[in-house]
Amino acid sequence: MVNKMAAGDCTFRPHFKTHQSADVGEWFREQGVEAITVSSVSMGHYFASHGWRDMTIAFPFYPAMIPGLQKLQTKAALRLFVNSRDHIKKLDSELKEPFSYYIEIDPGYGRSGIPFEEQERIEELVLAAERSSKATFHGFYIHDGRTYRCSGKEEVLNRIQPSVDILLELKKIYPHAKISLGDTPSASLMDDVSFLDECTAGNFVLYDWTQVQIGSCTPDDVALYVNIPVAQIKKENRTGILHGGAVHLSKDFVDEESGRNFGQMVLYSKESEISLLDGYIGSISQEHGTIQPLPAEFSDDWVTVIPAHSCLTANLHNAYITENGETLNKRILS
Amino acid sequence: MVNKMAAGDCTFRPHFKTHQSADVGEWFREQGVEAITVSSVSMGHYFASHGWRDMTIAFPFYPAMIPGLQKLQTKAALRLFVNSRDHIKKLDSELKEPFSYYIEIDPGYGRSGIPFEEQERIEELVLAAERSSKATFHGFYIHDGRTYRCSGKEEVLNRIQPSVDILLELKKIYPHAKISLGDTPSASLMDDVSFLDECTAGNFVLYDWTQVQIGSCTPDDVALYVNIPVAQIKKENRTGILHGGAVHLSKDFVDEESGRNFGQMVLYSKESEISLLDGYIGSISQEHGTIQPLPAEFSDDWVTVIPAHSCLTANLHNAYITENGETLNKRILS
Repeated sequence: MVNKMAAGDCTFRPHFKTHQSADVGEWFREQGVEAITVSSVSMGHYFASHGWRDMTIAFPFYPAMIPGLQKLQTKAALRLFVNSRDHIKKLDSELKEPFSYYIEIDPGYGRSGIPFEEQERIEELVLAAERSSKATFHGFYIHDGRTYRCSGKEEVLNRIQPSVDILLELKKIYPHAKISLGDTPSASLMDDVSFLDECTAGNFVLYDWTQVQIGSCTPDDVALYVNIPVAQIKKENRTGILHGGAVHLSKDFVDEESGRNFGQMVLYSKESEISLLDGYIGSISQEHGTIQPLPAEFSDDWVTVIPAHSCLTANLHNAYITENGETLNKRILS
Repeated sequence: MVNKMAAGDCTFRPHFKTHQSADVGEWFREQGVEAITVSSVSMGHYFASHGWRDMTIAFPFYPAMIPGLQKLQTKAALRLFVNSRDHIKKLDSELKEPFSYYIEIDPGYGRSGIPFEEQERIEELVLAAERSSKATFHGFYIHDGRTYRCSGKEEVLNRIQPSVDILLELKKIYPHAKISLGDTPSASLMDDVSFLDECTAGNFVLYDWTQVQIGSCTPDDVALYVNIPVAQIKKENRTGILHGGAVHLSKDFVDEESGRNFGQMVLYSKESEISLLDGYIGSISQEHGTIQPLPAEFSDDWVTVIPAHSCLTANLHNAYITENGETLNKRILS
């Protein structure tokens, strides 16, 4: 990903919400990454305490963030998401240090951001920086989560194109604005990112079963496995009761023809590519998961699964263990 | 709940996995509760370190539990779920102290436990204690999670009756066995629990929107609210973008006619009963929630919601704040 961004002269500001790990962060630093993206003020504090001095808080600003932002500004340069003039005024009066801001554009995804159609509001927000002593308008940001419902490179690229067109259109109107995309499927599948100024993709560092299904990666690209104890094997219907439930994996699932898939069983080996097995976690409660079908002669004490959604699974654990048995530092619940 | 159990001469061994709080545990202790139920060895260690000396680990035993159980036995008397003779042999040789065990019966729910029909296997397990120097057979346990899909007292009581019949039938065969139920809907809605020896219900201490929908409680009985910052109000379609996503609430939802409900909006006041509002969180991603519909003139900075599933929501936070601003100690990710 670092190489692709460099080839496209695109600033890479990876989102760290997926791994939430200072140690994984160091791997990025070794690759030359200097600025990051986080999803909350408290996550910003965690990474600031591990030496990160430039970060985007990729969540729409709201007033309760102020005290945390004031503290965070003593350690790091901040870029915020702002979508009202009143908020820029508020930040201007409450923060001590300069800050820059993105205008998040909603390309029709319907979550946060300002619809591209609302040109007056966008202009108002761009110009608001002129009346502020601390705010600098940085550019436009789109996270188009609709690519997460696509399957295959062609569908992902078709899906992201209208968002790309919006960003390019905005850049025509505001030539100094930087333009940025954030979803992992398009960042993974676009061959050329030279039209972008920045990219904030983050999930790719671990990937997961959702991304395998989209086609963003192969199973072997996935970097997060969960080893789960088998508590009971039911030979008669080839299922296994696992001590792996919603508190270990989250309740996120991939909707597949055969049903909901909360985690895909794999045969993991350090030496070779992983093999996918037929088994998957088809139902889950707080502590229990049910895996099916198990290989006929299965009698192991553990199964290994690729989680449906690595961000949420990682969030539920307080460390990673590497292939070599090393423990990686991880942020614990804020 | 304590009074109902006392009236029925039923030992109350509340499940602490919902609240995972030493401080909430003290409230139980003040009510005379002396023994508890937990769902993992690590949760057992947390409560043992807060003075609990008698606990059931309500998850089927598997060999990887051994080192943790050995340590835990230095602090607390343990009751385990065991469903194979080999496991009793293993425990007998690996543990230093005596332990008792439940046989978990699967009443057709299909998760863990031994189906009632497998009488030979049940007898084998009951008798296994006779050949063990440390194991004592305690009784039969059923958690019938099917009551969580019911609506109303009549349906819950009809749903639980076959499980009750199974327990009573087992008690006829093994008169010394204790019989125990664990689901919150039946514990909440049964008027008389005198036929039971023990009850391990736990969710009732917080309740949640799922339990309101079942009819286990009224909205005012719910003890867990989540206050969530509003990041963006979209007047045009009366939705709000909240900084409340899957990392704050979990991805659990209640399936309602209008769609998935990840959290029900309420008007909370310390002084009076809460009022339900129309709004609910209808979609959720890692950090964002979308609430709809907002009251027409809504302009608050925060919303209060009852989570869909309090156990999973509580698991994602590292403390509770009471109405009086007091912070309650809580176990953080194991």
